[in-house]
Amino acid sequence: MTTPHVNSESLERLESEVRTYSRSFPTVFTRARGATLYDENNKEYIDFLAGAGTLNYGHNNPKLKKVLLDYMMDDGLTHGLDMWTTAKRDFVEALEELIFKPRGLEYVVQFCGPTGTNAIEAALRIARNATGRTNVVSFTNAFHGVTLGALAATANGKFRHAAAMPTQGVSFMPYCGYMEGDSSSLAFLEKTLTDNSSGVDLPAAILLETVQGEGGINVASIEWLEGIDKICKKHGILLIVDDIQTGCGRTGKYFSFEHADISPDIVTTSKSLSGYGLPFAAVFMKPELDQWKPGEYNGTFRGNNLAFVTSTVAMREYWANDDLAKEVTRKGTVVEYRFKQLARMYQDAGIEAEERGRGLMRGLDIVKGDLADELVAECFEQGLVIETCGPDGQVVKCLCPLLITDDELNKGLDILEAAVEKQLKALAAK
Amino acid sequence: MTTPHVNSESLERLESEVRTYSRSFPTVFTRARGATLYDENNKEYIDFLAGAGTLNYGHNNPKLKKVLLDYMMDDGLTHGLDMWTTAKRDFVEALEELIFKPRGLEYVVQFCGPTGTNAIEAALRIARNATGRTNVVSFTNAFHGVTLGALAATANGKFRHAAAMPTQGVSFMPYCGYMEGDSSSLAFLEKTLTDNSSGVDLPAAILLETVQGEGGINVASIEWLEGIDKICKKHGILLIVDDIQTGCGRTGKYFSFEHADISPDIVTTSKSLSGYGLPFAAVFMKPELDQWKPGEYNGTFRGNNLAFVTSTVAMREYWANDDLAKEVTRKGTVVEYRFKQLARMYQDAGIEAEERGRGLMRGLDIVKGDLADELVAECFEQGLVIETCGPDGQVVKCLCPLLITDDELNKGLDILEAAVEKQLKALAAK
Amino acid sequence: MTTPHVNSESLERLESEVRTYSRSFPTVFTRARGATLYDENNKEYIDFLAGAGTLNYGHNNPKLKKVLLDYMMDDGLTHGLDMWTTAKRDFVEALEELIFKPRGLEYVVQFCGPTGTNAIEAALRIARNATGRTNVVSFTNAFHGVTLGALAATANGKFRHAAAMPTQGVSFMPYCGYMEGDSSSLAFLEKTLTDNSSGVDLPAAILLETVQGEGGINVASIEWLEGIDKICKKHGILLIVDDIQTGCGRTGKYFSFEHADISPDIVTTSKSLSGYGLPFAAVFMKPELDQWKPGEYNGTFRGNNLAFVTSTVAMREYWANDDLAKEVTRKGTVVEYRFKQLARMYQDAGIEAEERGRGLMRGLDIVKGDLADELVAECFEQGLVIETCGPDGQVVKCLCPLLITDDELNKGLDILEAAVEKQLKALAAK
Amino acid sequence: MTTPHVNSESLERLESEVRTYSRSFPTVFTRARGATLYDENNKEYIDFLAGAGTLNYGHNNPKLKKVLLDYMMDDGLTHGLDMWTTAKRDFVEALEELIFKPRGLEYVVQFCGPTGTNAIEAALRIARNATGRTNVVSFTNAFHGVTLGALAATANGKFRHAAAMPTQGVSFMPYCGYMEGDSSSLAFLEKTLTDNSSGVDLPAAILLETVQGEGGINVASIEWLEGIDKICKKHGILLIVDDIQTGCGRTGKYFSFEHADISPDIVTTSKSLSGYGLPFAAVFMKPELDQWKPGEYNGTFRGNNLAFVTSTVAMREYWANDDLAKEVTRKGTVVEYRFKQLARMYQDAGIEAEERGRGLMRGLDIVKGDLADELVAECFEQGLVIETCGPDGQVVKCLCPLLITDDELNKGLDILEAAVEKQLKALAAK
Repeated sequence: MTTPHVNSESLERLESEVRTYSRSFPTVFTRARGATLYDENNKEYIDFLAGAGTLNYGHNNPKLKKVLLDYMMDDGLTHGLDMWTTAKRDFVEALEELIFKPRGLEYVVQFCGPTGTNAIEAALRIARNATGRTNVVSFTNAFHGVTLGALAATANGKFRHAAAMPTQGVSFMPYCGYMEGDSSSLAFLEKTLTDNSSGVDLPAAILLETVQGEGGINVASIEWLEGIDKICKKHGILLIVDDIQTGCGRTGKYFSFEHADISPDIVTTSKSLSGYGLPFAAVFMKPELDQWKPGEYNGTFRGNNLAFVTSTVAMREYWANDDLAKEVTRKGTVVEYRFKQLARMYQDAGIEAEERGRGLMRGLDIVKGDLADELVAECFEQGLVIETCGPDGQVVKCLCPLLITDDELNKGLDILEAAVEKQLKALAAK
Repeated sequence: MTTPHVNSESLERLESEVRTYSRSFPTVFTRARGATLYDENNKEYIDFLAGAGTLNYGHNNPKLKKVLLDYMMDDGLTHGLDMWTTAKRDFVEALEELIFKPRGLEYVVQFCGPTGTNAIEAALRIARNATGRTNVVSFTNAFHGVTLGALAATANGKFRHAAAMPTQGVSFMPYCGYMEGDSSSLAFLEKTLTDNSSGVDLPAAILLETVQGEGGINVASIEWLEGIDKICKKHGILLIVDDIQTGCGRTGKYFSFEHADISPDIVTTSKSLSGYGLPFAAVFMKPELDQWKPGEYNGTFRGNNLAFVTSTVAMREYWANDDLAKEVTRKGTVVEYRFKQLARMYQDAGIEAEERGRGLMRGLDIVKGDLADELVAECFEQGLVIETCGPDGQVVKCLCPLLITDDELNKGLDILEAAVEKQLKALAAK
Repeated sequence: MTTPHVNSESLERLESEVRTYSRSFPTVFTRARGATLYDENNKEYIDFLAGAGTLNYGHNNPKLKKVLLDYMMDDGLTHGLDMWTTAKRDFVEALEELIFKPRGLEYVVQFCGPTGTNAIEAALRIARNATGRTNVVSFTNAFHGVTLGALAATANGKFRHAAAMPTQGVSFMPYCGYMEGDSSSLAFLEKTLTDNSSGVDLPAAILLETVQGEGGINVASIEWLEGIDKICKKHGILLIVDDIQTGCGRTGKYFSFEHADISPDIVTTSKSLSGYGLPFAAVFMKPELDQWKPGEYNGTFRGNNLAFVTSTVAMREYWANDDLAKEVTRKGTVVEYRFKQLARMYQDAGIEAEERGRGLMRGLDIVKGDLADELVAECFEQGLVIETCGPDGQVVKCLCPLLITDDELNKGLDILEAAVEKQLKALAAK
Repeated sequence: MTTPHVNSESLERLESEVRTYSRSFPTVFTRARGATLYDENNKEYIDFLAGAGTLNYGHNNPKLKKVLLDYMMDDGLTHGLDMWTTAKRDFVEALEELIFKPRGLEYVVQFCGPTGTNAIEAALRIARNATGRTNVVSFTNAFHGVTLGALAATANGKFRHAAAMPTQGVSFMPYCGYMEGDSSSLAFLEKTLTDNSSGVDLPAAILLETVQGEGGINVASIEWLEGIDKICKKHGILLIVDDIQTGCGRTGKYFSFEHADISPDIVTTSKSLSGYGLPFAAVFMKPELDQWKPGEYNGTFRGNNLAFVTSTVAMREYWANDDLAKEVTRKGTVVEYRFKQLARMYQDAGIEAEERGRGLMRGLDIVKGDLADELVAECFEQGLVIETCGPDGQVVKCLCPLLITDDELNKGLDILEAAVEKQLKALAAK
């Protein structure tokens, strides 16, 4: 197979070295639809990355696209700061009707800058102001963004080191499963918070992902989540669920925390919130926490009107009933089954691989980052875009669109399986 | 005049108290074109706010819109993380050809999260890593965003207080004109940096706006800018120009720093960069500063492909020659003339009003925030959207689209003048 | 028994509410000798507090006193900043000959401000400069002083809260025994430091007390100390032993870390270093860490000449052989035996009391702070000064002079036992 | 003249490189009395350094010495933590009677750790807790100590850099005379504090020295001090006077702030407070600020009983009337006259030297640090110990004992003058 020409000279010359995905997937893409990407050479790729969880409804979802194009052709507001628009009103009303009310949730909505990290910054500020406390508890392997306030809650040393100055205001505690025995990290947290001499100041909030995405598809057990919720209530600590990657149906429920009997005080959401890959983020908070004064937290692109439009369609199309949720669970089981098979293949070769995940957020931990990189490269060659995560990049991660067809899903999994077989054969030959 | 009904019950109920522009402009907007906004009652408003400088080419600019719709209809990538796309390649090539080369600039481009504050966070990190120093000098009345790293460089106490924890790593110095005599703030800065015992640690960078937008349309003189540049070079300090609000032609040049003979090491840009109101931001830096390791600074929405498309069109349409720049200068003179007249009207009434600005970034300082609020409310009633800025909200700010027609511009100015007359008459009657 | 008059009106009126020991021991003391305190009413008290471990050689030790008075009468320098004096030379030579050489230690000595907290601040700075890292690991229940840098490493919320601002640069980890199973805290620490995504940045140093004094007489096992030492060496982390309270023979060796096979990079010492209760502190560091530039860390009272004199005598009198060390061990066994008996008495009454300690640093944990306060008050009434420690003040602590006579020791223990009996009788009567 | 042997091998080997005065004065001292130091070779030195202002009453003042020796021989408590002693009671009563009452001051006293930096840490904490604000204003060239909290308020980069981490919670403003025109720094400060958008958060306190010692004998004018006091009262900011070096009569009044009509809320004192060179420090605060809870700020050596004894004698001997204050003023005039002559000698040689000072705190600024070092070395050779200060070490500083005899004072000044003449002759010869 000859490698087709990639016309990337100007990109390599003009773009900062910070670029990363173009290194794993070195081609120039032109268009995309559903779960498929196309490059300049018209090569097709199944997309198991999906904007790192941003494209739950697929690329350029036709239902959303239609309404969006109509809105744009009619000169609906593209940019309106945080002024009121019909698009925003439709959005908040759909959110209340289709998301909050059926789940018995009562939240007010803050439109912050349209990225997850901005939502985290806002959430931390809300919690600190409401409690008068500075400290926040975050967890090992957590990723919450890289602006300085969110970075303080991000565990990975790569990002932390790049700040070139110490962060502050966050204490890290072991996530579910980090210490031996699920309950031990809860017991340690409870002891730490009860003990006035633990060095961990009583926090304003506990901030968590129910499944850690960047951190390696680490899944918090339901018991652990409910244990955290109890600790929060006992000590008067706010619970912030960062549902940026796990939300919008990714785990088989609209909110990832619905799997457990817990009640977050603050929820951050972004990524698939617009449903169309448009920058968008919001913070949902219990009304009594909404102590902002007008304009205290601002940003030029808060309240992206194009995103209001597509997000509203997405809610009405996909969340008026539980059909999609069921589909996610069903497809998740497929991926789980296949990943478990792959894990066994590695185990048979002496590599302690492991499958982990919830819903359509699935990881295959193959222990070594270089093996995972090799796998990703082979998959890309064969037409599958899939990324790695975890502290050593040792976890191959499936975040495919929730609406992926069974054919596409199976085709992607087949490519991955073939790549695994090839890798294991090569390893055996050594 | 009867106030038409505003259907905002759900918005008021569901949106956080942090909302701000919907308080000044309490109506529900439906569509917008060029310099005109329309609300649900079909009332028209001239837009002197223009997304706080985000809509330099007007709302839904038809030239940009056409290409954008074509791209979207063809299923061009909407979201691609930081993967290579044809849209991105077109963008960097246009940027090099039309913006960098003609100005003799050699920069590499970092696509950060699509908001100004994310760009500032990246810029500060670049400077700190490149120099190994932590401190950064920012200025009185500076506004650089509200995420924690950027907030540290934002002077306004309203935003700072909302962080609910101390910021660090920034020393504030008096901006041009803050102290009596333009040169005095330069002399003070120079003394402070030369003196190892000033308490101001040698900074990694000096971060500035050439015209402070949120801070009250404070205009740095050319001499002051060149003085800062000299100080930077003398002490080995990097110069970061925050061109987020002042860039993309706002002041009559593409970059606001082109008015002076200076050479910023890092430039942050956002707001009108997409040309269409789409969330987008970038950092331009001298190649030797590009010491990022892959992925050290990330974000889901870095590299907004729809914005690449419109931004490329905007550059090709408006920056292939200097026609627009000249138009901005001409229209700026019109606003300057009218604002000076208004200032004199206030002065005649004993209020020490002042006109300030550069290009189409113009302010009318009427000393008291409550007077400015009253003026804004009357203008809104009469069909003009215009906002205030400055520490006490005492400066009425014109940030109209650069492409505004002379008719619209004059109509807006006439509304403002009538409002001023009404206010002064009422004051005289007291 | 009638309470004798205490003439404290002026003291109560003029001294800040921060005063603490005068609340537990509300009398006015006049003189002291060895292990005995005398108040204005000529009442005698056995001293089990001994300046919180500052008076290892007793109050006004006659051997030290004689040489000190001679020095003072001859107009030896009282204050000499950090100039060279014969007193300082005698001190460093005795230190080398009697302390460093016999133990195979090679350290240089920094004379910092004459308090433990100043020594900790210096030690942290040495470690941060030598490694270029900011973070430091400290432990649950640690106490290292209250100036801001040391406070960051102090776990107790009472002190931390009083700072009225967040501290930074320290991560707290569980001390030996804090989690169930001695080895678990080591395993957790090792995992945390190995894992680049734990949120705990690779530290410059690990800072520890071998027995936590203020924290509640928590004794690190020898295995744990050696485990920490191994972790430090493996990861290139400096080991700082805070021997301020545990040093100068308190645990039965001159340095408390001699019980384990470890080699601290930096040692902080104060309290009993002068031997006479005079303010004095020093930092011992491996020569390669001595990267200070002249005068970078200063202080008016660094190098207390009167303390040099008494400290030199103390070393020559008590550390030329191991007689004192053996005596400490023997007396420690006595206290241990008696405290274990008392613990059993509480256990028989259903209170899960526990004896803990090493050498003559012994605690009786009776679980509840109010019980301990009651005990201390009764002891004071009966002529024994003894204090509490631990997060809830629930540990009665014996820090009697190392030179206490057997008679005095037994008398003090008898008073304590009688107080315990009285308390348990009263509890039983309820 | 042959240089006598200096027996310093062990000192050079065992003491940290941080040592500083032993570099300027490379001999081994044995004893001292009044204003005279003696070294091992029996060489005499007039002492114009006097423990950097710690020995206002001279070395081993016989009146203090007698009472101190009696106290020690009677086994008065040397160390008593913060328990009540007769020595402490005598001290607070003398303080009230002789210092507070005659000056109309109503303060309560906190005994903190016995060094200036501990007092500053306490003072900052008091101010932050009382106001609920974090920020503190300090000034260019300020020196307040090197523990982390005090270091944040210390301007000199040498000390700040050694911290190896950023400090926080302090904004630096120009001290009196730093900017051209005395009033300009006041106007700038007032504008900065009034303007909510200056970047300087409303501070808990303004912390200042009335004459900056380490910073170069910079003298705040009376008008400036009174201007600061007005600003504090207007904005509800606490005024902290750091009287550690300037207090105890050094400037010709007991407290240095008595020269101005101001009323500090908090005063820090140390150095000459004991009168005998013993480590001692205290914080005086208005009673309503004493919001400490017992034990929130502690330290082993708070309340040095030996220092209580000598301090009480010093107050009764020297502050029962204003004889000493007058003497200080008179001798200060002598030094001022002589230093002005020396300044003119330098000016005649083209060096813009300047005399500065108040009372017996006098500086001769000779512009260049290397000239000052040369001068100090020559003085030492000729039997005068005198040090330099200022950001470049360019100010020769006279801090001789207040009780120095006229003969000694003149002898010291003569040595200095001869050294100046020698230096100028050598310069002229080049």
